[in-house]
Amino acid sequence: MESLFFPDGDIESETVDPGKVTRKVRARGGKLMLVEVSFASGGVGAEHEHPHDQATYCLAGEFRFAIGAETRTLLPGDSVFIPGGRRHGTLCVSEGRLLDTFSPQREDFLKK
Amino acid sequence: MESLFFPDGDIESETVDPGKVTRKVRARGGKLMLVEVSFASGGVGAEHEHPHDQATYCLAGEFRFAIGAETRTLLPGDSVFIPGGRRHGTLCVSEGRLLDTFSPQREDFLKK
Repeated sequence: MESLFFPDGDIESETVDPGKVTRKVRARGGKLMLVEVSFASGGVGAEHEHPHDQATYCLAGEFRFAIGAETRTLLPGDSVFIPGGRRHGTLCVSEGRLLDTFSPQREDFLKK
Repeated sequence: MESLFFPDGDIESETVDPGKVTRKVRARGGKLMLVEVSFASGGVGAEHEHPHDQATYCLAGEFRFAIGAETRTLLPGDSVFIPGGRRHGTLCVSEGRLLDTFSPQREDFLKK
């Protein structure tokens, strides 16, 4: 059986956008997946959509975050909910990290 | 329509265990709910179980975290997955915060 503990030291960081955005797929199982995304200032999460529900928590830094037509600033402790199928994207204003949570899991994030 | 943005300043802190444990229900919608739990040193999340899948991310501090028969230390950046129905609990070793994520939502956490 796979462990239910996901120590930070066991998680590989993947480059999403060289020099700008990296990602760690953290705890996952059942209907849940946690993914931490680290952004340098000016890093972008281009607008996109997916059928999975998503909730995002700002761990550090400052972001401009767009959901549909609404854009707001996220600071640590702020969070958002993005219904499946809703367009969203972000611009990192000041170096930081977001914790993205998905239901169901983003199977497309797992290595084949 | 309810906003999809959940600024920290809009979230009420609820006492779970006076002087020891408080909770903020953060972004939620669809099949997801984020709940941040703050512990003083020695604060306890008593062992319990629920049908919801849960993933927990350690934001700050140090915890002893039990899932079934396995107990490990959680430090910031560590995370765990708890399948629905699995017993789990925690002891805060050094003041800190956990971000609990649930699927589906913990309707029992919402005020009536």
